Amino acid sequence: MTIPFDSPSGSARGPIREVEIVHLGDELLLGLRDNTHLTFLGRYFSNYGIKIRRDQVILDKHEDIVRFFGDSWRSSDLVITTGGLGPTVDDITREAIAECIGLPLEFNETIRRTIESRFERFGRKMTENNLRQCWVLKGAEILENPNGTAPGLFLEKDGRYLVMLPGPARELQPMVAEVLLPMLVAKGLVAKQKPYIQLRTCGIGESMLETKVKPILDAHPWAEVAYCAHSSMIVDLRLACLDPARESALNQLASDVAKLLGEDLIGYGECTLAKRIHQYLVANEQTLSVAESCTGGMLAAALTEHSGASKAFVGGVVSYTNEAKVQMLDVPECMIQQHGPVSAEVAIAMATGAAERLGSNYALSITGFAGPDGGTEKDPVGTVYIGYHSPSGAWSTRIVLMGDRATVRQRATFAALDFMRRKLIEHKADDFLKTCC
Amino acid sequence: MTIPFDSPSGSARGPIREVEIVHLGDELLLGLRDNTHLTFLGRYFSNYGIKIRRDQVILDKHEDIVRFFGDSWRSSDLVITTGGLGPTVDDITREAIAECIGLPLEFNETIRRTIESRFERFGRKMTENNLRQCWVLKGAEILENPNGTAPGLFLEKDGRYLVMLPGPARELQPMVAEVLLPMLVAKGLVAKQKPYIQLRTCGIGESMLETKVKPILDAHPWAEVAYCAHSSMIVDLRLACLDPARESALNQLASDVAKLLGEDLIGYGECTLAKRIHQYLVANEQTLSVAESCTGGMLAAALTEHSGASKAFVGGVVSYTNEAKVQMLDVPECMIQQHGPVSAEVAIAMATGAAERLGSNYALSITGFAGPDGGTEKDPVGTVYIGYHSPSGAWSTRIVLMGDRATVRQRATFAALDFMRRKLIEHKADDFLKTCC
Repeated sequence: MTIPFDSPSGSARGPIREVEIVHLGDELLLGLRDNTHLTFLGRYFSNYGIKIRRDQVILDKHEDIVRFFGDSWRSSDLVITTGGLGPTVDDITREAIAECIGLPLEFNETIRRTIESRFERFGRKMTENNLRQCWVLKGAEILENPNGTAPGLFLEKDGRYLVMLPGPARELQPMVAEVLLPMLVAKGLVAKQKPYIQLRTCGIGESMLETKVKPILDAHPWAEVAYCAHSSMIVDLRLACLDPARESALNQLASDVAKLLGEDLIGYGECTLAKRIHQYLVANEQTLSVAESCTGGMLAAALTEHSGASKAFVGGVVSYTNEAKVQMLDVPECMIQQHGPVSAEVAIAMATGAAERLGSNYALSITGFAGPDGGTEKDPVGTVYIGYHSPSGAWSTRIVLMGDRATVRQRATFAALDFMRRKLIEHKADDFLKTCC
Repeated sequence: MTIPFDSPSGSARGPIREVEIVHLGDELLLGLRDNTHLTFLGRYFSNYGIKIRRDQVILDKHEDIVRFFGDSWRSSDLVITTGGLGPTVDDITREAIAECIGLPLEFNETIRRTIESRFERFGRKMTENNLRQCWVLKGAEILENPNGTAPGLFLEKDGRYLVMLPGPARELQPMVAEVLLPMLVAKGLVAKQKPYIQLRTCGIGESMLETKVKPILDAHPWAEVAYCAHSSMIVDLRLACLDPARESALNQLASDVAKLLGEDLIGYGECTLAKRIHQYLVANEQTLSVAESCTGGMLAAALTEHSGASKAFVGGVVSYTNEAKVQMLDVPECMIQQHGPVSAEVAIAMATGAAERLGSNYALSITGFAGPDGGTEKDPVGTVYIGYHSPSGAWSTRIVLMGDRATVRQRATFAALDFMRRKLIEHKADDFLKTCC
C-alpha cells in the first residue's frame, strides 16, 4: 500500500515511516499515572496513516537516556520524546539527548522573551530555573506552547527527525494537534489526514459486531478497520482508507454498514447515547426527567455531561431509600412492600412519579442491586430494572449485569439510556431518525 | 541502601534489581486503550521496593520481538511480558521469545487438562485454537489463571528470570497479586512488601504540600517519598522505608506529618471524602441528602460509590431547571429572580429544601456555571456556590474553578464534600476525629 502525498511545500523529503516514542517518566514507571500520551499520540498519528512502532518509558537518567533513547534514534525516521523539559527538572534530559544526537545546546533568546512576557502577563516574576528552558539543540525549530512555559522542539539531522514535547497533557495535546501535525504535513513528511468514518454502536459487543460486519468488510479489502470498546457496552467501528481517491467509496461502505447495524448503531463520530436522546427531545420540544436508586445520580450526570442539556433535561431524583421513593416520587408504600424496591413495578412507578413531579413528558428510572451486598435469590447482585415513561406508554425491562459495583452502575446507566433510545426508535422512528448528533 | 530479605525458602539466589516490562500490544500503539498494565505493575512492584527500569510497548511481530524483547532480556534480571498469549493470536510471540531465550517449546499436558475442564465447566467445547496455549517454554513453571484460559509462565535461565502474563487486566491483576508476588517472595527473589503509609490530602495542591512537609522529611532522609495527584484536588503522599526495622519510626513520622497537615489531611490509604463523611454520619446516627444543579448528579453518585451508603445517605434532587428548584426543593421563586439561580442564597435554600423534603439532618448543595456557555460578569464560567445545611447552622461558600466542563463538575463535587468535611471538623471536631475510614 502506498501513502499518497500532496506536493510538499518544503523541500521534498521521504515520508516518515518508522516512529518511536520515548517518555521520560519516572512517575509512569512508579505507576503513579496512566500513560495517556501513548493513547493520544497513537490514535492521532494513526489518523494520518502512521503507526507507532515502539513506545518506551524510561527513567530520566543520563545513562538510560543515552542507551534507550539512543537506540530509538538510530533505528527510526522520527523519535518523539515527552517530558523532561520542565523548569524544575535537572538538565539531564537536554544534555543526554544532545550527546546522543551529536549537537551542542545553545541559548535561545526568543524563548527567553516568550517566557518572560508570559510571566509578565500573569503578573509573576520569571525565576532562574526558567532560564534552563531556553537551552535548545542547535538548529532546532521551536514549537510554540500557548499553555505552558516549555516550548516543544523540532529538529532534522541526517534525514532523521526529533520532536520533543512537554510532559503535561494539556500542553502536549494542543501542541500536537495545532502545531506539530500541520507542520509535518506542510513539510511533506506526513500525508494529510486520511479519510475515516467512525460508527458507534451499543449493545452488540465487540466480537458479535466483528462477526456481523465481516462479510461486507471482506468484500472491501481496501478499507482499514479498527474496533474500540468503551466499558463493554459501547463499541466503535472505525473505517478508513489510505487512498483519498476512495473517499466516496468509503462513504458508501459506511452507509451500507450502518444499514446492516440497524438499531445497534447509535450514530457517528463521538456521538453519545445521552446526546442522541437530547437531539430528539429538543427537535420535538419534549422534556425528560429521571429517578434512580442504585446508580445514585450517574444517569442524571450522564444526561448533563454536555452543555445545553437544560434545553430538554429538567432534573432528577436520587431515591436511595424506600422513604425517598415514597416522599419524592409518590411510589405507593404498599407496592414497595409487595414487590420490593427492586422490581418492574417500582421501576415504572419511579419513572411515572418523576415525570409527574418534575413535569416532563418522558422519564427514565433505574432500580437495582449494584452489590457487593444485597440481592435476592430471584434477583441476585447485578440485577437492574429500568423503567420508562413516555407519551406512548410505560415499559420496564430487567437485565442482569456482570462486574463489580462500579461496573454494574456504569453499565446500568448505559443500559437505561439505550433502552430509551430503542423505545424511541420503536415508537417514533420517523421523528427519531430525522435527528442526529 | 540495602534491600533486606527473609531467608529464602527456595535456593538462595540474588534479589531482583533490574526489571523491565515488554507489552505485546498493537492496540496500545494504535492508541485504542491506555496502558494500565504499567500503572498497575509499577505501583505493585514499588510497594515491594522494586522500581521498573524500562517499559516497552512493541508490535506482535517476530522481528520486533527478537530485537526489542531480546534487548530487555539481555540487560535485566527480570523481564515481564504482557499479552500475546491468547488463543486467537498467532504463535509469533511464543516462538520469537523461545528464540531469544534459546529454549525449545514443549507441549504441556497439565495446561491442556486445565483448559479442557474449564471449558467443560462452562458447558462449551474446547477449540483447536486453544491447544496453542499448551505450548510453553521448556522448564517453565505455570502461573495459574482462574479468570481465563491462558496461564502465566515463570522461567529461570542463567540467573535471569522471565514472567509472561496474559493481556486482559482482569486476568493479569489477580495473577500478579495472588500468584506471582507470593511466589517471588517465597523464592527469595523479592523482599516482603515494604512498610509504607499513604496520607491523602485535599485542597492543598501538590507543590504547596511538598513545601509544607519538606522540613520534616528532610530530617528523615531514610524515608522514601512519592506524591500522586488525583484531578488536582486530592493529593496522596506516600511514605515508605525499605528497612522493616524502621517500621515504628515510619509510624511516628506519618503521625508527625499528619499533625502538621491538620485539616488538609482527609485520612489514610484509599480513604475518600465521601467515605470519611459517611463514617461520621453513621457513627453519630445522622443522615445526609443533596441537591445539585451544575454537577447534575455527580455529588449523589460520589456519595453512593461505596456499598452501604444507604446507612447515612437518603437521596438527592438534581434540580437542573429553575422550576425543579421551586417544585422539588421549595426554593422561593422570588429568591431565584432576585439573586439568580447561581447564588449563595439559592445554594442554601437548595440544601435546606433537600433536608426538609428528604428528611435528613444534613444536606449539601451545588449550583454553578460549569460552562462552556453561561456565566455572568460577576460570576464567570467556573463559579460554583456550595450550600450546607446542618444541625449547627447553614453556610455557603463561593469558589471559582479552572478547567473545562467535565473538570469544573468534578472539582465542584470534591469541593462540596470537602466543605462539609471542614465544617464538621469546625463544629464537631471531637466526634469527627474519633471516626475514620
